Amino acid sequence: MIIQQVHVTPVAFRDPPLLNASGVHEPWALRTIVEVVTDDGLTGLGETYGDLHHLGRVRECAKALVGLDVHALNTMYARIDTIVGTGRRSGTTKEKSVDRVFSAFEVACLDIRGKAAGVPVSDLLGGKVRDSVPYSAYLFYKWAGHPGEEPDRFGAALDEAGIVAQAKLLIEEYGFASIKLKGGVFPPDVEIAAIRALHEAFPEMPLRLDPNAAWTVETSIRVGRELDGVLQYLEDPTAGIPGMAEVAAAVPMPLATNMCVVASEHFPPATASHAIGVLLLDHHYWGGLTRSSHIAAMCDTFGLAMSMHSNSHLGISLAAMTHLAAATPNLTFACDTHTPWQDGQDVVLPGALRFLDGAVAVPTGPGLGVELDRDALAVMHEQYETCGIRARDDTSYMQRFDPSFSARRPRW
Amino acid sequence: MIIQQVHVTPVAFRDPPLLNASGVHEPWALRTIVEVVTDDGLTGLGETYGDLHHLGRVRECAKALVGLDVHALNTMYARIDTIVGTGRRSGTTKEKSVDRVFSAFEVACLDIRGKAAGVPVSDLLGGKVRDSVPYSAYLFYKWAGHPGEEPDRFGAALDEAGIVAQAKLLIEEYGFASIKLKGGVFPPDVEIAAIRALHEAFPEMPLRLDPNAAWTVETSIRVGRELDGVLQYLEDPTAGIPGMAEVAAAVPMPLATNMCVVASEHFPPATASHAIGVLLLDHHYWGGLTRSSHIAAMCDTFGLAMSMHSNSHLGISLAAMTHLAAATPNLTFACDTHTPWQDGQDVVLPGALRFLDGAVAVPTGPGLGVELDRDALAVMHEQYETCGIRARDDTSYMQRFDPSFSARRPRW
Ligand SMILES: [Mg+2]
Ligand SMILES: [Mg+2]
Repeated sequence: MIIQQVHVTPVAFRDPPLLNASGVHEPWALRTIVEVVTDDGLTGLGETYGDLHHLGRVRECAKALVGLDVHALNTMYARIDTIVGTGRRSGTTKEKSVDRVFSAFEVACLDIRGKAAGVPVSDLLGGKVRDSVPYSAYLFYKWAGHPGEEPDRFGAALDEAGIVAQAKLLIEEYGFASIKLKGGVFPPDVEIAAIRALHEAFPEMPLRLDPNAAWTVETSIRVGRELDGVLQYLEDPTAGIPGMAEVAAAVPMPLATNMCVVASEHFPPATASHAIGVLLLDHHYWGGLTRSSHIAAMCDTFGLAMSMHSNSHLGISLAAMTHLAAATPNLTFACDTHTPWQDGQDVVLPGALRFLDGAVAVPTGPGLGVELDRDALAVMHEQYETCGIRARDDTSYMQRFDPSFSARRPRW
Repeated sequence: MIIQQVHVTPVAFRDPPLLNASGVHEPWALRTIVEVVTDDGLTGLGETYGDLHHLGRVRECAKALVGLDVHALNTMYARIDTIVGTGRRSGTTKEKSVDRVFSAFEVACLDIRGKAAGVPVSDLLGGKVRDSVPYSAYLFYKWAGHPGEEPDRFGAALDEAGIVAQAKLLIEEYGFASIKLKGGVFPPDVEIAAIRALHEAFPEMPLRLDPNAAWTVETSIRVGRELDGVLQYLEDPTAGIPGMAEVAAAVPMPLATNMCVVASEHFPPATASHAIGVLLLDHHYWGGLTRSSHIAAMCDTFGLAMSMHSNSHLGISLAAMTHLAAATPNLTFACDTHTPWQDGQDVVLPGALRFLDGAVAVPTGPGLGVELDRDALAVMHEQYETCGIRARDDTSYMQRFDPSFSARRPRW
């Protein structure tokens, strides 16, 4: 199964004004859709980041993969390393370029191999250990709508009442059984109050708070101690492995991260200093699904629990995340997803991915089990062409409305 | 592809009197051959240890796998864990039962999946990064023949001249380009002299010495320092991670191991204490080929180099080792193999595995690329039935001829 063509299509879809420590989501979120086509006519799908610089690297590497067999993942990785890497360890540099670019192609190749073998991608990853993958309600402080536009259907969430209302809406629509609040937006005491309000409204639900390293070590320790018995885990309260280690030693709950352990080179110092208790897996930057399996094995070895990280994404990513989580025995926490915020927009045909009781049934069709909706892809690509956004920049967008805003961290 | 039958066949083949720290190889080496047969008529091969206790566990687990799909490796592992494990971490206990039993079935399932997809097993592991896998000449001190028998064709090797002669023979026949000496047999100065003699006879060849933890920390440090510039690495000079760490800090060459890091639970203390520089991979006890890939990724992450460990084995194992090594980019040292000592005896049909310049070309046929020689299997099984050996016991066999022999370690 030789790769004959690779199509790379940037897309844009509507995104609500979700607040975070960097600023606020712009009106359009970007993704890149990858289609790998083999000489025997099979097509595999991948999805990755949409920033222009990344898109350029994906396009450049796509050309270099033509002529390779879909099994030749090591060679693919080496070729991509030659193009975008900067030496042997380039896959693990700060930019993680190689792993990020490789991921979309690897997923597409697994999609093809699953289709060829007539088995779901989860079967290529060791087989599913659960029939459906639980996700959490991913709450955001948000404006009612983008400035100058009508409010969106989710409405504003700028205080604890708004957050609780948002949780109710998402739980009603999706059935989520655990909750994550994106923090780092308001002073810590406001976010503590929101968590307490959520705990009161949903006393049985595991809760998580993620301020994206907006806090000092001292603030992190204070918040962690105040939320003893309320939080399942505290996500990236502060920046860097040494700071996280200091916090981890002083708070009662485990710390989770998708910020301080995002490349192989972070594993030795993070495990040595016991900086984290939960790793948030994300195949988009860990180099695809197989390499994510390696990371999962490493977490098992070093006694780290696992959940899954999410950026704004579409259905190809959701399918890949679901297969990976289903085939990872030690990924036991409900995963993050931005799916509710895409609000039905997708590049895959509807039906394959459904939330029931907050969980997505693992697609049982061959490969990823999702099919490209070519009309939707065309529409979203057109949106990309006209939306004017070429790289995510929550900070500048925020500063348009609040020139005094600064994304400096720690903020509190 | 549902598993319909699993055949488990113990075999015995002639083994020369190879000396080591535990004693001497008995006249027969044991292995267990596993054949997994699916409902669509495909057969996959696996090979594992032949000790009676292990054979019993393999047989028991074989029954439990009938009805599973060959992709359901996670479920397979869990079932085996239920039968032979003793809880969640049982795969990593001292006996490593789960990983050891699972391995043979996993290899057989990959063989089947490769056959079904028409690709070599290396393709299921990420694709080969080398067309052939280099092995090293694995030298042993040995008697001329088993007591009471005619000398074997390798003759005696009981001093440095014998060792150099043995190296010449193996290199002439196989083309090996690196050399490993099994030590721990004679006092360290004798083995130092043998290494020096090998260095003089083969000045270009990387050399390794493996006394199987026969030495104290002090002796290990002395030998390591004396062999500065001569050894590529020193293998398991002393027992245990703390001792190895002490030696590693004091000698100029890296330490390798197949003794102190043989299960996941050994990784954290070994990496924290910098006990080893080279991990010897062995899919037979690391839970098969996929799990060995995880270990390889972990070694890459923690800056450990890799080679491959070998026990006495037959062609199914050699094929599996070759596929794994070929698809593991960071396995860069020549691998160990006992193949020369099996001296042509095999359960696979000849032709698929050939040594050229000390390396085995990665089989390009589907699956493992080797086929069972049913006549040879029958003969070897008959040998198993009549040989009288049911578990490897180098020590008792040695004591038959030297009642004063003790396998206590450290010995020097
Ligand atoms: Mg996060
Ligand atoms: Mg050894």
